[in-house]
Amino acid sequence: MSRKSLGTIVVLHGPNLDRLGAREPRWYGSDTLEAINGEIRALAAELGFDVEIRQTNIEGEMIETIHREGSGAAGVVINAGAWTHTSVAIRDAVTALECPVVEVHLSNVYARESFRHRSVLEDIVTGKILGFGKESYLLAIRAIRAAVERKGPTS
Amino acid sequence: MSRKSLGTIVVLHGPNLDRLGAREPRWYGSDTLEAINGEIRALAAELGFDVEIRQTNIEGEMIETIHREGSGAAGVVINAGAWTHTSVAIRDAVTALECPVVEVHLSNVYARESFRHRSVLEDIVTGKILGFGKESYLLAIRAIRAAVERKGPTS
Amino acid sequence: MSRKSLGTIVVLHGPNLDRLGAREPRWYGSDTLEAINGEIRALAAELGFDVEIRQTNIEGEMIETIHREGSGAAGVVINAGAWTHTSVAIRDAVTALECPVVEVHLSNVYARESFRHRSVLEDIVTGKILGFGKESYLLAIRAIRAAVERKGPTS
Amino acid sequence: MSRKSLGTIVVLHGPNLDRLGAREPRWYGSDTLEAINGEIRALAAELGFDVEIRQTNIEGEMIETIHREGSGAAGVVINAGAWTHTSVAIRDAVTALECPVVEVHLSNVYARESFRHRSVLEDIVTGKILGFGKESYLLAIRAIRAAVERKGPTS
Amino acid sequence: MSRKSLGTIVVLHGPNLDRLGAREPRWYGSDTLEAINGEIRALAAELGFDVEIRQTNIEGEMIETIHREGSGAAGVVINAGAWTHTSVAIRDAVTALECPVVEVHLSNVYARESFRHRSVLEDIVTGKILGFGKESYLLAIRAIRAAVERKGPTS
Amino acid sequence: MSRKSLGTIVVLHGPNLDRLGAREPRWYGSDTLEAINGEIRALAAELGFDVEIRQTNIEGEMIETIHREGSGAAGVVINAGAWTHTSVAIRDAVTALECPVVEVHLSNVYARESFRHRSVLEDIVTGKILGFGKESYLLAIRAIRAAVERKGPTS
Amino acid sequence: MSRKSLGTIVVLHGPNLDRLGAREPRWYGSDTLEAINGEIRALAAELGFDVEIRQTNIEGEMIETIHREGSGAAGVVINAGAWTHTSVAIRDAVTALECPVVEVHLSNVYARESFRHRSVLEDIVTGKILGFGKESYLLAIRAIRAAVERKGPTS
Amino acid sequence: MSRKSLGTIVVLHGPNLDRLGAREPRWYGSDTLEAINGEIRALAAELGFDVEIRQTNIEGEMIETIHREGSGAAGVVINAGAWTHTSVAIRDAVTALECPVVEVHLSNVYARESFRHRSVLEDIVTGKILGFGKESYLLAIRAIRAAVERKGPTS
Amino acid sequence: MSRKSLGTIVVLHGPNLDRLGAREPRWYGSDTLEAINGEIRALAAELGFDVEIRQTNIEGEMIETIHREGSGAAGVVINAGAWTHTSVAIRDAVTALECPVVEVHLSNVYARESFRHRSVLEDIVTGKILGFGKESYLLAIRAIRAAVERKGPTS
Amino acid sequence: MSRKSLGTIVVLHGPNLDRLGAREPRWYGSDTLEAINGEIRALAAELGFDVEIRQTNIEGEMIETIHREGSGAAGVVINAGAWTHTSVAIRDAVTALECPVVEVHLSNVYARESFRHRSVLEDIVTGKILGFGKESYLLAIRAIRAAVERKGPTS
Amino acid sequence: MSRKSLGTIVVLHGPNLDRLGAREPRWYGSDTLEAINGEIRALAAELGFDVEIRQTNIEGEMIETIHREGSGAAGVVINAGAWTHTSVAIRDAVTALECPVVEVHLSNVYARESFRHRSVLEDIVTGKILGFGKESYLLAIRAIRAAVERKGPTS
Amino acid sequence: MSRKSLGTIVVLHGPNLDRLGAREPRWYGSDTLEAINGEIRALAAELGFDVEIRQTNIEGEMIETIHREGSGAAGVVINAGAWTHTSVAIRDAVTALECPVVEVHLSNVYARESFRHRSVLEDIVTGKILGFGKESYLLAIRAIRAAVERKGPTS
Repeated sequence: MSRKSLGTIVVLHGPNLDRLGAREPRWYGSDTLEAINGEIRALAAELGFDVEIRQTNIEGEMIETIHREGSGAAGVVINAGAWTHTSVAIRDAVTALECPVVEVHLSNVYARESFRHRSVLEDIVTGKILGFGKESYLLAIRAIRAAVERKGPTS
Repeated sequence: MSRKSLGTIVVLHGPNLDRLGAREPRWYGSDTLEAINGEIRALAAELGFDVEIRQTNIEGEMIETIHREGSGAAGVVINAGAWTHTSVAIRDAVTALECPVVEVHLSNVYARESFRHRSVLEDIVTGKILGFGKESYLLAIRAIRAAVERKGPTS
Repeated sequence: MSRKSLGTIVVLHGPNLDRLGAREPRWYGSDTLEAINGEIRALAAELGFDVEIRQTNIEGEMIETIHREGSGAAGVVINAGAWTHTSVAIRDAVTALECPVVEVHLSNVYARESFRHRSVLEDIVTGKILGFGKESYLLAIRAIRAAVERKGPTS
Repeated sequence: MSRKSLGTIVVLHGPNLDRLGAREPRWYGSDTLEAINGEIRALAAELGFDVEIRQTNIEGEMIETIHREGSGAAGVVINAGAWTHTSVAIRDAVTALECPVVEVHLSNVYARESFRHRSVLEDIVTGKILGFGKESYLLAIRAIRAAVERKGPTS
Repeated sequence: MSRKSLGTIVVLHGPNLDRLGAREPRWYGSDTLEAINGEIRALAAELGFDVEIRQTNIEGEMIETIHREGSGAAGVVINAGAWTHTSVAIRDAVTALECPVVEVHLSNVYARESFRHRSVLEDIVTGKILGFGKESYLLAIRAIRAAVERKGPTS
Repeated sequence: MSRKSLGTIVVLHGPNLDRLGAREPRWYGSDTLEAINGEIRALAAELGFDVEIRQTNIEGEMIETIHREGSGAAGVVINAGAWTHTSVAIRDAVTALECPVVEVHLSNVYARESFRHRSVLEDIVTGKILGFGKESYLLAIRAIRAAVERKGPTS
Repeated sequence: MSRKSLGTIVVLHGPNLDRLGAREPRWYGSDTLEAINGEIRALAAELGFDVEIRQTNIEGEMIETIHREGSGAAGVVINAGAWTHTSVAIRDAVTALECPVVEVHLSNVYARESFRHRSVLEDIVTGKILGFGKESYLLAIRAIRAAVERKGPTS
Repeated sequence: MSRKSLGTIVVLHGPNLDRLGAREPRWYGSDTLEAINGEIRALAAELGFDVEIRQTNIEGEMIETIHREGSGAAGVVINAGAWTHTSVAIRDAVTALECPVVEVHLSNVYARESFRHRSVLEDIVTGKILGFGKESYLLAIRAIRAAVERKGPTS
Repeated sequence: MSRKSLGTIVVLHGPNLDRLGAREPRWYGSDTLEAINGEIRALAAELGFDVEIRQTNIEGEMIETIHREGSGAAGVVINAGAWTHTSVAIRDAVTALECPVVEVHLSNVYARESFRHRSVLEDIVTGKILGFGKESYLLAIRAIRAAVERKGPTS
Repeated sequence: MSRKSLGTIVVLHGPNLDRLGAREPRWYGSDTLEAINGEIRALAAELGFDVEIRQTNIEGEMIETIHREGSGAAGVVINAGAWTHTSVAIRDAVTALECPVVEVHLSNVYARESFRHRSVLEDIVTGKILGFGKESYLLAIRAIRAAVERKGPTS
Repeated sequence: MSRKSLGTIVVLHGPNLDRLGAREPRWYGSDTLEAINGEIRALAAELGFDVEIRQTNIEGEMIETIHREGSGAAGVVINAGAWTHTSVAIRDAVTALECPVVEVHLSNVYARESFRHRSVLEDIVTGKILGFGKESYLLAIRAIRAAVERKGPTS
Repeated sequence: MSRKSLGTIVVLHGPNLDRLGAREPRWYGSDTLEAINGEIRALAAELGFDVEIRQTNIEGEMIETIHREGSGAAGVVINAGAWTHTSVAIRDAVTALECPVVEVHLSNVYARESFRHRSVLEDIVTGKILGFGKESYLLAIRAIRAAVERKGPTS
């Protein structure tokens, strides 16, 4: 498509999300990560964005992706998984970002164990979307689109 | 439009939201409630829903609206405002609903006073969207659409 | 019946109790509020009392009923529902009563969420009965009868 | 009386209750335990129950009574006194019972020291009655009668 | 009086204050609300203010009075009664005011139950006066006069 | 003036208040302590009181002033500064006073650091006034006048 | 000795104190319980008291000793050992006593594990002596003597 | 068997364990205590130990068994049941033991109510084994064997 | 050996365990990790299992080992070291396992710093063994054997 | 008396104790400090000690007295009054003492406000005596005598 | 020396530091305060500063020194000793300073009792140095030098 | 330089410190990590040390560096960044070190979010320096020099 891109959205998947589909379908549904990534790519393209998607089980790799990919991004969508509740190091990396950042969760973390109710990211992100399964990611892409629209494209 | 409706989405605005635009624009933006309601109605119609919108400053009125309008609804979008943090009575009313319920907030409540970090609704709703200003409501309408699509229309 | 009344018992039902029967039968049983009120009236009459029964979803209406009906009453039976856990205003209204007051709950609130374990009324009422479904109300009527017997009728 | 018994209600009195009448009449009234037991026996007979009443100051004896008498009972009324607040061992014994169990207290424990507000039994019993002096026991007998009526006699 | 008014002071009385005189005289004294209102009116007039006084037992009515009367006021005196300790919704309404706001209490709330020690208003009002009975209101009127003097009248 | 004095009001200023004017004008204003003391003396005289004013940075000196000056006083106005939050020893000295005692603060301590929200004096004083700058002291003098009027002069 | 007795002091030793001498000499010293009891008897006789000493490892036995021996006693000295920290049942038994009661500990419990810092007896006894080894008991006997002197002998 | 015994292992079962098999099979399995004791005896014999097994519902009896049997033992295996969470008195008795002590639980106490997560014994025992049903006891016997092997037999 | 294997046990060692022998022998003993692994291999072979042993200092590597090796395993033995107390990400990986999982610790973590008393794994594993040094691992192998025996081999 | 002194006991009275007799007789009795000091001197002389008694309302003076008088003393008796609950500086001074130190209180502090239940001295003193009025001091003198007897005089 | 001074560094020693060398050498080392002051003076001179050193055991004296000496100083080094953990009054005095302020401690306070872990100064000083014995002061002098270098001398 | 080295100082930089200069200059200043490392190297050389500097975003790499480089080092300077607050695994690695370890922070962490006030390293390091920007590292090098001087060089 010849339309000028609105920039790149970086989508970050944290630990254990490579096991989606196989892992606890009660909470996470039966879609695989690859299927979800496909829908993210399709919607991003439809809304005019390029997209970079990364999954890692190593905290330091997520930090470095945020450093490297996050600085020029149009927006960041982050599902930090279990690190949401514990990783001040990822928080510090996110704090340095200047674009809109959306925290997402597949499940409604507030209907689960109490240690999942606390997020070390939530007060520094733009907003938070949770509980809608894979739709949480798609709504986050739309939320970034709305933010970008108010400001114009980043490049 | 001759297309069959997917049912009715009930949108509930809690206390002080009648003052939007005038009240603390740092947190809530400068749109009036009426302007936001207009966008909600437009998107709902576009997605095939009827919509009922209510604002009240009296807790008992919100409870009775939930009783009366909520039972047959396709979905409920609730911004309970300050009651989010305190009203077990509204929680009890919401618990009885069977359709998808989305909790929304205009501002990122986690970036504000600590008493706003706790929601008495969050563990019983389907999902939660916050921090995107008026866009929070629009994303919630889309979230209900996605849920209905998976199940078919309610009537 | 020509027997002189022992006075009036005021029975107060708080928020959402108008939905009994329809709402969470696991906790509240399948009797409607009207059916329960019928049994309350029958037992009160059998024990020699007049009875006034009120349900409201508006905290201020319960406060005003306590002011108006509670001052001359032989006893008060109060199921404040969700307000049990939060309403200092109702507590203040109850504190001013001079007759026996019985706090009742349909379900065993201690077997439910921890926020239901705390009552702002419990230390100022005469006693508390909970967990027996509609029987909780009937036992409360008997408890007031026993209290009145020790002191004689109020009028 | 030739009427078939509805089964046996076991009434358990915990530590220091052998001193009723002599001990802190402000909280416990001036009736002796024997006088209260007499009223319990009379009401139980009137309602069609046999009754077994035990008082002990030794926790292990109460546990063994629950094991031995509680298994075949129609209902259990337990005033565990100070153990209410501390004895997980009695809780474990009560948990194994299958009949209705009613926790009772003579005084309104919520109007007293804060350590009396916590009960280790309250979430596993059928219901709880407190604050009505000796009447608390009599209401408990009636509560068991109502429960049995719904299910029919145990033998 | 021909002297130009310094503007209007809005005086708000919360739940149960309509029962002053009858209710717990140990804490609240024996003056009725009407008598206190008379003294408020007299002092306000002497200091050059118009005055609007409202009592309500319904939280939503107090919120709406704050919205409607508070915006143009020279000052607001608020005794939110029990809502002082619980109502984030009233806090949100007060936060939007631009004139001086004085929180008052008849009794010394710190010499009473611990749940009365917490105010959800105290960090957003101009100042706080408590413990002097009806005099608390009169001192609040004077406090607003001093604030207005520093800035000149509002109209 | 030939008018008989209503007795002596003791005004106590705690640590660091000798630096008023120079210290954190955001919270404390730009008046010096001497200027404030002048206004206190003028109002006290106008209302018929003698006045004794003391500032100290040494806790033991404030305790001894309370012992020596407080016993015969018509009233005490105390701004214990930082000791408000920590000094049980000053609390013990104040507890022994029989005249009205008013706790005052220049700033609204509840809008500041959380350790300033706790006062070890607040439950034993007559009342508390805070947030009105130097006016807090003047309102306290009036509060004592109102208390004395109800009881007549102390000598 | 022909001197009339000042009454009986009851000395109560709680669980594990039968092992004194063998058990943790770092905290409890190397005297056996029998040796300590000998010194208690000698001092009590010298000061004009009869003495009853009991050790038990069964909570119910201590309760019953308090019931039986405590009612007519001139004073009670109680080292409840580990029950000091947990037994509300013993507290309830002690509460009913009318004579002076002294809580004693051999070791300085505040220099040990934090769960030993809390006593469920301390607010209802006359006084508390701890940290002086066997001397703690002897000082307690003297404390009772001083109390009795102020009131005269009990018989 | 002519082989010299490695000494005696004392196995202690606390309250309600006499009801194994009948009580809550979800947590405790369907083996009776006698069946488990049989397996314990067989393994102990195989590994060269004598064994003493005691069950009691009376805390003081467990304390006295620890005093009497524990001092000369090769090892102690203790399942204190509900007392694990509350009995400082048993802790004090165990503290005096010099042989290896193993705390065991049939069920995984950490997957149950939060009050079962705290053990007053855990910091003073050698080790802890839990969650394997009757196998927990057998592993404890092996753990003692391993400890004895490192030190040689006790007699 | 021609005997059919009962399947593979995966043994996971967390951070710093590569330094065993050199590191804090007071807590961890003087055996090296290689020596312990040798004993684990010998016992596993004796009991009929294959065994896979992994040590890592990188959380993400442990997560990936659990994903890859854990799914087909007969059992998992996990000493997560310091991550026991902090890593929700490892917890999430373990939660997805279907075989028996045993949490082990060399030292008695409850006799050490309080932050070691909390395990984020303990409520989701089958059972827990701690305090027996290297023997903790060997008992864990036996615990898995007992579990497998009840169910038969996995392949 | 020609008998050689056993050394000097230093008795320290903290803030507000100069007001004894006048201050809150409910808690502190009606003896003046001078009368109590007389009894302390008499008993100390009888037991063979010299005595130094100091009262101060200034924390720094008590610290310096401890430095100067405490180092060579046979024992120290300290009633730190309100500083008991707050002064880490006095704690640090007391920690450096090598002789027996006894913490005393006139009243039973555990029957009073909860902030009086905490002592910053209690874990570093030899022992603690409280609740016996002036007798608390006299028992403390005896406790020091017993300690000295075990060790012989200090000079 | 003819070199122009960079201004005066004020060094403040709090309570009990006059006893250095004699007091708890385990934590504080064996240097006397005078020896440490000598090294401070030597380093300050070498770096071009005048120096004022004060020790006091009276909180009010430290406050007044901060008022008097601190306002014109180039930097302040403060070891507030025990007041570090308790004195809001010293905090308020320090807050008013405009020069760099360094909090120092001789010992590593975090390796000691938990009440020493909290500092009421730490969030308002420039930085904090602790655990290096007398070297802590010397490093603080260097830290002030570095700060002054960035800004130039104060006079 | 021919002078013999005093040994090697290992300097460890934790997560996100590779972004210094770009990241939140309000807290961290505008120097890059490379510039700071240059100053560290220069000062270390001047004081006679070799220096090894490592930055990593992967916790396991820092642990392994501590294992490998830390054992023979003359001293360790560690800025663990966000891991300071969370990583028990790094704490365990540091605990095994025998040389002086200095914890440093660029910013005054106590003036920032409360989760930054807690360090899991602080009680096991030699000392702590914070708040002086890059100077914090240089002071740490000096602190190690002072420690080494007292003991002589490590090789």
